[in-house]
Amino acid sequence: MYRTIEWKSGIVETIDQTQLPNKTKIIRLRNAPEVANAIREMKIRGAPLIGVSAGYALALTACHSRAKTSRELMVELERDGRILVATRPTAVNLRWAVNRIISKTKEAENNHLRTFVVEEAKRIAEEDYQANLTMGKHGSTLIDDGDVVLTHCNAGALATSGYGSALGVIRAAVEAGKKIKVIASETRPLLQGARLTAYELKKSRIPVWVVTDNAVGHLMQNHMISKAVVGADRILSTGHVFNKIGTYSISVLAKAHQVPLYVAAPTSTLDMNGTLESVKIEEREANEIHFIGKKRITPNGVKVYNPAFDVTPPQNIEAIITEKGVVFPPYTETLAKLVSSADVG
Amino acid sequence: MYRTIEWKSGIVETIDQTQLPNKTKIIRLRNAPEVANAIREMKIRGAPLIGVSAGYALALTACHSRAKTSRELMVELERDGRILVATRPTAVNLRWAVNRIISKTKEAENNHLRTFVVEEAKRIAEEDYQANLTMGKHGSTLIDDGDVVLTHCNAGALATSGYGSALGVIRAAVEAGKKIKVIASETRPLLQGARLTAYELKKSRIPVWVVTDNAVGHLMQNHMISKAVVGADRILSTGHVFNKIGTYSISVLAKAHQVPLYVAAPTSTLDMNGTLESVKIEEREANEIHFIGKKRITPNGVKVYNPAFDVTPPQNIEAIITEKGVVFPPYTETLAKLVSSADVG
Repeated sequence: MYRTIEWKSGIVETIDQTQLPNKTKIIRLRNAPEVANAIREMKIRGAPLIGVSAGYALALTACHSRAKTSRELMVELERDGRILVATRPTAVNLRWAVNRIISKTKEAENNHLRTFVVEEAKRIAEEDYQANLTMGKHGSTLIDDGDVVLTHCNAGALATSGYGSALGVIRAAVEAGKKIKVIASETRPLLQGARLTAYELKKSRIPVWVVTDNAVGHLMQNHMISKAVVGADRILSTGHVFNKIGTYSISVLAKAHQVPLYVAAPTSTLDMNGTLESVKIEEREANEIHFIGKKRITPNGVKVYNPAFDVTPPQNIEAIITEKGVVFPPYTETLAKLVSSADVG
Repeated sequence: MYRTIEWKSGIVETIDQTQLPNKTKIIRLRNAPEVANAIREMKIRGAPLIGVSAGYALALTACHSRAKTSRELMVELERDGRILVATRPTAVNLRWAVNRIISKTKEAENNHLRTFVVEEAKRIAEEDYQANLTMGKHGSTLIDDGDVVLTHCNAGALATSGYGSALGVIRAAVEAGKKIKVIASETRPLLQGARLTAYELKKSRIPVWVVTDNAVGHLMQNHMISKAVVGADRILSTGHVFNKIGTYSISVLAKAHQVPLYVAAPTSTLDMNGTLESVKIEEREANEIHFIGKKRITPNGVKVYNPAFDVTPPQNIEAIITEKGVVFPPYTETLAKLVSSADVG
């Protein structure tokens, strides 16, 4: 079964996603700063995968540590945790995974802390994979035979341990025998839709059409999209969803055209204490817009504004799909209930 | 005074717009099929400029014709007119310019038909230039000091004889002493916003920021856009506006955020007899999406859908700015009145 990232006894192996779909380049990461760089450069991307990678990064720290005491090891883990959390401010799974490993390790009180950290990182990866399978099953009930489903960016196997969140829902619907077509919006600036979603779906033989982000309104106006499913980088207790820039525009268009918009994300994406004001929307470097590959598209000296995420308000979201089940508005109530519930997966 | 296209005694000179902003390559066109190719390949683009170019193309036909009778010349003009009209189906100015030259030449009944055609083509170019100046003056009254104005694609000097329609409105507001910032959406697939609008505005020292098409909703949600001005490729008597793909999405977002959307276009863009059903939306070749420059961004074998235009309904348009004045809804009434009125410019 295909996994996007793997622990190979002291080395983390994954694909350099900036090279897809042209090259399938495997990268081998040997320590936490290397993982942090890969995240910063978006060789590793996708909120759940970033979380899983951060876990493995701390596993690398523990595995190769020369610390002589638990206390020394904790200092190293906390130092590398800070480096990892600083790479990208918006996706919450990163912080969640680092906090989970550090707090669990602190509590562990055993003599095999190194092994404990590695095992905990593997558990995070495995749980994410299982969460995607379960999320897919829950979400697939919302998809009908014959649907044309829009998805934005890549919330697929490549954005997670494997299988995918939004694409997991699509995969599960296809596995349930439903005939589905997918519209992948290309997702400028980094083209995750055109590059990654198209690559994954083609590989899985799920019919996919790539369109420019500009074409989404026109397609909805002409009844060529029946549903939309996206992932999330962070979900607040109110149901506000931080996701790839352009998601908000899609949500407004979907609302205006009565196209249901579903958000699929593991509960590790929930930030029940965050507020709209407290979450920073990452602004990425100007060259992501100025250049496509090596080709400069803007005149020299022109300014750009490059926010990487936007916020979709709860009233534009038909349902949120998690591994613990599907929740509907009012999210303030249903998400709180979901979080306090046992796993129903 | 800068003109985008020029008649140089039997040769038409213009800029190859596919090479901007990296290269300012002048192309010299010697006959109508060369002009038709340049239009098809989007070296020449922008509805008004396409109309002006079609006029000059027929001027080339007349100028170099070996026809011995008026009848023979008319046959040649009609043949080349058909070639020109077939290049791009959506922008109406193309058909308008060809029809104008052919019908006026038929009526001319004089012995200097070759000169007549050349002079008529020059008149079309000059009228377009003057229309932009007048449109700018009319439209600038709608723009306030301190506005941040979104524009999509390029409806500037490069899309017209000079000065521009939507950018003409912005230029005129700036010339009237208003401090304005412009947001240029990059406009995938061919990036006319990032390449051409940014180039023109920078040259004219009007502050401009380039954003991805995906960022427009986020900007409006955060009150970072106060108005939007776009051009048009065809306007129906009902006020339905055919314009670059993505305009419809912007119109829905603008409506949802109470951002007034203005359409600036010369009356040569009006198609008072056309209907939503009768107008063909051009679908352009897949490689416009697959490749950016020479870089392939999609996996091999993946399908794309690439409509070049969309339709914005009248209820999403605050006003239509023409050289004959500004009209407001209900457009069925106000456009009819405008067309039957004398030029107020």
